[in-house]
Amino acid sequence: MSAKKRVELFYDVVSPYSWFAFEVLCRYRASGSWNINLQLRPFFLGGVMQGSGNKPPASVPNKAAYMSNDLKRLREFMNIPLNQPANFVEAVLVKGSLQAMRFLTAVDMQQPDKTEALSRELWMRIWSRDEDITQPDSFMEAGKKAGLSDAVIKDALGRIKNQEVKDKLKETTQEALDHMAFGAPIIVAHVESGPELIFGSDRFDILARLLGEEWKGPLPEMAKAKL
Amino acid sequence: MSAKKRVELFYDVVSPYSWFAFEVLCRYRASGSWNINLQLRPFFLGGVMQGSGNKPPASVPNKAAYMSNDLKRLREFMNIPLNQPANFVEAVLVKGSLQAMRFLTAVDMQQPDKTEALSRELWMRIWSRDEDITQPDSFMEAGKKAGLSDAVIKDALGRIKNQEVKDKLKETTQEALDHMAFGAPIIVAHVESGPELIFGSDRFDILARLLGEEWKGPLPEMAKAKL
Repeated sequence: MSAKKRVELFYDVVSPYSWFAFEVLCRYRASGSWNINLQLRPFFLGGVMQGSGNKPPASVPNKAAYMSNDLKRLREFMNIPLNQPANFVEAVLVKGSLQAMRFLTAVDMQQPDKTEALSRELWMRIWSRDEDITQPDSFMEAGKKAGLSDAVIKDALGRIKNQEVKDKLKETTQEALDHMAFGAPIIVAHVESGPELIFGSDRFDILARLLGEEWKGPLPEMAKAKL
Repeated sequence: MSAKKRVELFYDVVSPYSWFAFEVLCRYRASGSWNINLQLRPFFLGGVMQGSGNKPPASVPNKAAYMSNDLKRLREFMNIPLNQPANFVEAVLVKGSLQAMRFLTAVDMQQPDKTEALSRELWMRIWSRDEDITQPDSFMEAGKKAGLSDAVIKDALGRIKNQEVKDKLKETTQEALDHMAFGAPIIVAHVESGPELIFGSDRFDILARLLGEEWKGPLPEMAKAKL
């Protein structure tokens, strides 16, 4: 059996396409379908857009309309309970995710084994139940659902504004920019020839080839069950 | 056997991702893997970008660098002999494809059965052999390789600047914009629930689901041979 290949996923919970990539990669790791060492790298998409000079896709009206339909189709294909927030502009572009990503970073620094569950709860809030992800109460609730202790939640909330947490989030964002990121999600597969960057949640077949694995669709557990 | 479903492909030969979609859909039609009535709809990408307010992806430097690597990987995956022009900015952004798409439109209006072969020859010129696609001599050569008679080539060259040809290209471009296009390629699948628009060459699994067909990867002939 060959060594696990390292795969980094840079993501922000404000990005619905990041949620797709996150769940698919977590499924491939959990089911053992791919022999990967998945590293979750919460970053700040706003910083990536600013650093790369890119603009949110929704700033082109036809693209925004397409995205809305595309997400609905992918929801079924990916089997992820995604619903667009009623007020997309307010939730995604105005309120944004800076506090949420700082909270997630604060938790990731202390309890990295909770990063997956907490990320999912934050996505469930903004991209499924249309709930706030900017207020301390929202992080408290998300933390509890993710199985964090009250002590860890309070500690993380207390550190949200600390320079250490801000710097950590900035560093991760800068690392993605150093890989030439221009959006989210960014998957970095560490293969023999070096790091390979993949943008978006629609290159899993290419990722599989790079890893020497097989792409079995977004639900590898079902592909396994069929055998 | 159910009726063939109509699938329109709006494309411009200046767009490398359009080439991928074009070859994959032509393969699925030719091999009979999908029961589709594929309609090739040459349009003008410059008009789509202007009409939708979108900007070429290469205008963001990180995106341009990514695209170059992405195209190399897709070249292998798709089995299409794509090579980036040495001077990408000159070939794609400065010289562009307006004359080429007018020539293709002029031929399409007279000999639609040659549209596939001529489109492929134009892509081979700009996106494989780094050859010109703006001069009459270039169109002459491409036409000959595509199996057009000298008479048809001369006739089409003579009509490139006719209002009728310009209008036809504009109409097709406007039709894509009416479908909310913002780039290329645009696939419009006419299914029971109505027309479904797909952007890009990375949603064939979604397209297959919409059509009630199976996605067998970019080389359906090989998938068939395996059975």
